Amino acid sequence: MKTALSIDIGGTSTKLAMVDSQYKIVENHRLNTKVCKNEADFFEVLFHAIMPLLQAYPETQGIGIGAPSCRADAIVGATNLPFSERVEIVKILETKYALSTFLIKDGSTAALGEGLFGLAKGMRNYIVLTLGTGLGCGIVLNNEIVRGSNGQAGELGHAVIKENGRVCKCGKKGCLETYVSATGIKRTVFQLMADMQLESSLRTISFAKLTSKAIFEAAKQGDALALAAFEYTAKILGRKIAELGMTFEPEGVILAGGLASAKDVLLRPTIAQMERDLLPAFRNQIKVVTSLLDTNEAALLGAASLVFNNIKANNPLYSHS
Amino acid sequence: MKTALSIDIGGTSTKLAMVDSQYKIVENHRLNTKVCKNEADFFEVLFHAIMPLLQAYPETQGIGIGAPSCRADAIVGATNLPFSERVEIVKILETKYALSTFLIKDGSTAALGEGLFGLAKGMRNYIVLTLGTGLGCGIVLNNEIVRGSNGQAGELGHAVIKENGRVCKCGKKGCLETYVSATGIKRTVFQLMADMQLESSLRTISFAKLTSKAIFEAAKQGDALALAAFEYTAKILGRKIAELGMTFEPEGVILAGGLASAKDVLLRPTIAQMERDLLPAFRNQIKVVTSLLDTNEAALLGAASLVFNNIKANNPLYSHS
Repeated sequence: MKTALSIDIGGTSTKLAMVDSQYKIVENHRLNTKVCKNEADFFEVLFHAIMPLLQAYPETQGIGIGAPSCRADAIVGATNLPFSERVEIVKILETKYALSTFLIKDGSTAALGEGLFGLAKGMRNYIVLTLGTGLGCGIVLNNEIVRGSNGQAGELGHAVIKENGRVCKCGKKGCLETYVSATGIKRTVFQLMADMQLESSLRTISFAKLTSKAIFEAAKQGDALALAAFEYTAKILGRKIAELGMTFEPEGVILAGGLASAKDVLLRPTIAQMERDLLPAFRNQIKVVTSLLDTNEAALLGAASLVFNNIKANNPLYSHS
Repeated sequence: MKTALSIDIGGTSTKLAMVDSQYKIVENHRLNTKVCKNEADFFEVLFHAIMPLLQAYPETQGIGIGAPSCRADAIVGATNLPFSERVEIVKILETKYALSTFLIKDGSTAALGEGLFGLAKGMRNYIVLTLGTGLGCGIVLNNEIVRGSNGQAGELGHAVIKENGRVCKCGKKGCLETYVSATGIKRTVFQLMADMQLESSLRTISFAKLTSKAIFEAAKQGDALALAAFEYTAKILGRKIAELGMTFEPEGVILAGGLASAKDVLLRPTIAQMERDLLPAFRNQIKVVTSLLDTNEAALLGAASLVFNNIKANNPLYSHS
């Protein structure tokens, strides 16, 4: 059986999957990235997990990796990983396993997955926004992932959308992801609890304990403050999607990640704001939807597609100079 | 001599040029678009100008058009032209002259021109911003113009960058081009005259009479208010370029149009703001420059390149579904 080994590297955990050429995940594993103290630790754990997989699937065609902070074939300056400034992960794995290895940023693997099996199937131009701890993004134009000069394109989370806005972990103020993400809506709830007099079940929950899921559950119960938080988030998100819509004119925008599980509660006010902001010529043509896929799975399948399509070699928008 | 007929349609004037295959403009004309009362008027004037050109250059290979408000092969909802809602200009010219006719939006013709003969030469990924009456934009990724699903991509001027900001002619408030354009900096000067006590030579000029050129001349003389207006404009522009920089990771951003003639007065604070806003991984790699080309000429040469490269048929990022 021909397979691809997919690796989705994240700050909390790293997911591995063996994917067959029909894009079925035949085996998967989750490694705890957080306990790794340094790069050597990480690779020891990773190699330990990879070896039996490659032995079990000797017809593995290559390795596809999605990771944060990619730059060409390396992971560079990843603040959420216990890595040195620059880790030449492609070279390391190619040397060790003699398998073609492909690396793109995690937002892009999610976008590839959505194009293969999600709501972006059949779209030539689309954008995937993953609304989790941060805001990830993958952009596809004419069926190709937009990578930019060094594979770093599609970094939207740190666009400054509010002067002197919320402090971001990047050091700036007012970055998009401090508002539009699972963490962002939590901050919004606390801002609204401070600003407004609305009663809310959320007032009994500490900042440390509050999750975007709890905010969504409250909103479903009609909690006015939770609903206001979604409205506030959607207004900023809808405005940004309108801007992206006029920049790329995509067929669709797919929202994924934890916050997107709120579905209509997020979607309805987002679309309303987007349509208000779009110039008339762009109205009523951009489909904004929430993903039906498991985000982790989509990213793993997307990473596998790099291998099966040998994207390193064939894809002009993927290739870097 | 093989030639292409280039047409650059604008609200004030429409430029025509016969361009040879070495991209030399062998003849050019300017039609007054403003006096045309309607579509029929416009085409009468246009046909009248085209006919002798085609007779003089019988080896004309096709017609390349840059225009505002393109949608696929038509001009749709152009508020600055005396047109009905939808003008099938490609079909009209192909029927009349039996020549392949190519249409893209004006920001894209400017971008093609910059790539052929300007500072974007040799760049695979770049963005051209034309800062004139409004803000135009053309985006090139992997040597291809980004068109979007219907040829409307690259519309940045109406991104809302300030809540309850300046009223825009599109009906919204806070659109980018109400700040970052020749008209935008003029509005900024009047805002600063109201807000600040700074003396300025510009205080003797009426709104109707003030031009971005006069603001630039004053800035060159060290006029503090004029300089403050450039700083204010550059801050918004630099922030937006940082956002575009992280979205596309281009090699360069070329500023063209009237406001860009201020060169360093605009460029220096723009680049400073951009670098501040970029995530570290993106810093010191995006070249921001002001165009060395005549904007009209660049657009006409860009339009000619559509013909010589038969871009309708061959170019995946150009083609529409």
